[in-house]
Amino acid sequence: MIDRQPIPAKSGVSRDERLARLALMRISEPGDEELGRQVAAQGAEAVLAAICHGELKSPRLAHYRTRITTISPDHDLAAAKQLDSRFICPGDSEWPTQLDDLGLKRPLGLWVRGESNLRHAVLRSVAVVGTRAATPYGNYVARELSMGLAERGWTVVSGAAYGIDAAAHRGSLAGNGLTVAVLACALDLCYPRGHEALLHQIATAGLLVSEHPFGCPPARFRFLERNRVIAALTRGTVVVEAAYRSGALNTAKHADALRRHVMGVPGPVTSSTSAGVHTLLRDRGGVLVTDAADVIEQVGLIGDDLAPPRQGPASPRDDLDELASRVLEAMPARQSATIPGIAQQAGIAPDSVVSCLGALAVDGWVEHTEKGWRLAQSRPLRPARSAR
Amino acid sequence: MIDRQPIPAKSGVSRDERLARLALMRISEPGDEELGRQVAAQGAEAVLAAICHGELKSPRLAHYRTRITTISPDHDLAAAKQLDSRFICPGDSEWPTQLDDLGLKRPLGLWVRGESNLRHAVLRSVAVVGTRAATPYGNYVARELSMGLAERGWTVVSGAAYGIDAAAHRGSLAGNGLTVAVLACALDLCYPRGHEALLHQIATAGLLVSEHPFGCPPARFRFLERNRVIAALTRGTVVVEAAYRSGALNTAKHADALRRHVMGVPGPVTSSTSAGVHTLLRDRGGVLVTDAADVIEQVGLIGDDLAPPRQGPASPRDDLDELASRVLEAMPARQSATIPGIAQQAGIAPDSVVSCLGALAVDGWVEHTEKGWRLAQSRPLRPARSAR
Repeated sequence: MIDRQPIPAKSGVSRDERLARLALMRISEPGDEELGRQVAAQGAEAVLAAICHGELKSPRLAHYRTRITTISPDHDLAAAKQLDSRFICPGDSEWPTQLDDLGLKRPLGLWVRGESNLRHAVLRSVAVVGTRAATPYGNYVARELSMGLAERGWTVVSGAAYGIDAAAHRGSLAGNGLTVAVLACALDLCYPRGHEALLHQIATAGLLVSEHPFGCPPARFRFLERNRVIAALTRGTVVVEAAYRSGALNTAKHADALRRHVMGVPGPVTSSTSAGVHTLLRDRGGVLVTDAADVIEQVGLIGDDLAPPRQGPASPRDDLDELASRVLEAMPARQSATIPGIAQQAGIAPDSVVSCLGALAVDGWVEHTEKGWRLAQSRPLRPARSAR
Repeated sequence: MIDRQPIPAKSGVSRDERLARLALMRISEPGDEELGRQVAAQGAEAVLAAICHGELKSPRLAHYRTRITTISPDHDLAAAKQLDSRFICPGDSEWPTQLDDLGLKRPLGLWVRGESNLRHAVLRSVAVVGTRAATPYGNYVARELSMGLAERGWTVVSGAAYGIDAAAHRGSLAGNGLTVAVLACALDLCYPRGHEALLHQIATAGLLVSEHPFGCPPARFRFLERNRVIAALTRGTVVVEAAYRSGALNTAKHADALRRHVMGVPGPVTSSTSAGVHTLLRDRGGVLVTDAADVIEQVGLIGDDLAPPRQGPASPRDDLDELASRVLEAMPARQSATIPGIAQQAGIAPDSVVSCLGALAVDGWVEHTEKGWRLAQSRPLRPARSAR
């Protein structure tokens, strides 16, 4: 069963530490390295006290005093209970330890909504992100790719935005997969408005995650910091469609900095919403992926998760050796030919032509008639050698 | 003026050597390493004599005896004159020396039709190749790309096949460029049939090139060997559309083996005619290109031919510093706000908010009213800082 308590009973984190983190998240903005450095050095309680008492020399952190009136752990915990949400922080068993790769920019904590265990959910996960102004092509590919990932047991993480993000979540849901939406606003707000039903679906079948205290609206810089969490939670980021300037490329940048796999789905070079992806593939070391198998080959375990080899249908002529192939090519399309004629066309000595024709006849390629040799009326449809 | 003589007056190649090469091309197939080795060791005249007298131990070369009755240099040279064609071979001033990279598979000679000098034409050249079963997308991109190359003074080399090849030639012609078609049959044959007009256009404005003696029909293996010539003549090969099994990928393979640049134009992952290109880009080190500028950046001279940096339109908010940006984000969409209210929303100390608002007001972002601060009714359309 799942622990829905706002504060888990079993955790290495003290109650005071937890409440201090809650308070710091109320007054600060995510991804503040200066704050991260102080918390790492002194602990959350001491930093909170220092900010409250105006004892910090950092002008950056002094700004946060402005918000100390908003601190209300009791209100936060009550709201969490009402929203079926919980607060997790480093040290809790549900904390995804890959977030530690963010270093000083590691979230102080996360609000989580949904029944699954976040740490387990993102052990095998991929971020699928892209432009809000997605084309039907991009939506289709994001959905198919995410459905494929879901069917293979991979969690899809995205940002619940319009366009590619939504298609990714929907694809994962359609594949009965776990999907995680990391929001740039609080869990009690519905952003974007049009995604109320989708967010509800994700909360029911997957997980909603946010660094923001209840009531916090989305903002431009919050999207950018949110992206670092999406990148850090996952083994790799797939950008499906993105123009030159797209937040999805920002997520890919974070993924690259965190040494996660960076992947991109190509599209028509005539489409501006693929231009950013093409830049990613061309100049920034992104790996081209075309479907879920390609993605899993990148992020999965070597050997376990190789994509199936891609090849077209085999041609029945594939297995012919060079001489036989040249003899066959030398046969006229609709008439019969003599050995000397074939020999000259093929540039092959007559006795070799005879033996080639014999072998070709056995395999059904040519036949002998009164007028000489000709192509068989019905020729092999499958490779002759492998059919034996 | 152009030398239209079948045998150039000025050349380091003797008449006998030239006639021997002509004869060897009559009886052999292109790209025969064994023949290349013998010619390199003994010279064309000696090898021809040995084959004619049955003195060669190589069973491979012995086959060519079958065709000695077809040798007819006089007929070849008369036909060349009639077709406004010429024969060039290593040592001639028109011989493109990059073909020497083919080693033992270097052509014994080439038949050339058209007014331009082949060696000059392919000094700055790119191969643009792809599937015959091109989509409208592929045709469009091949044409645009080749037109762009032509307009920048680059020669487009291709194989005159249906689909991408034809679009490449046509694009180059449309850009008033030089285009070179390397055929897998003789210059006096029209293959494919439907390209009679196109081949005529290329012969008039560009060059037709073939290793095959007059009368020689196309054949499967001749296409494959022809591809090595396309790859060797050019600085790089661009594959526009190709399924998993496509001759265009064979050209790319030759280009790679010859250390030429291998490039591919991505397309929708839903299109089977882009699947081969995607494999090339993903698994075989091909470089993703989207237009002529990208191609020239690859094959051109470093420094001279850099593609212009790609970026989307600049946003007027780009130049705002972090604090100003956060203050701007904290402004309500339609109402006015007070300094304390903005300070709390932004998480920034009130005195800093005041100075940010001052700067934002100067740049026209916000304005002060009786009720407090609000977003300006008409905000900057261009970056404020760079507009100064």
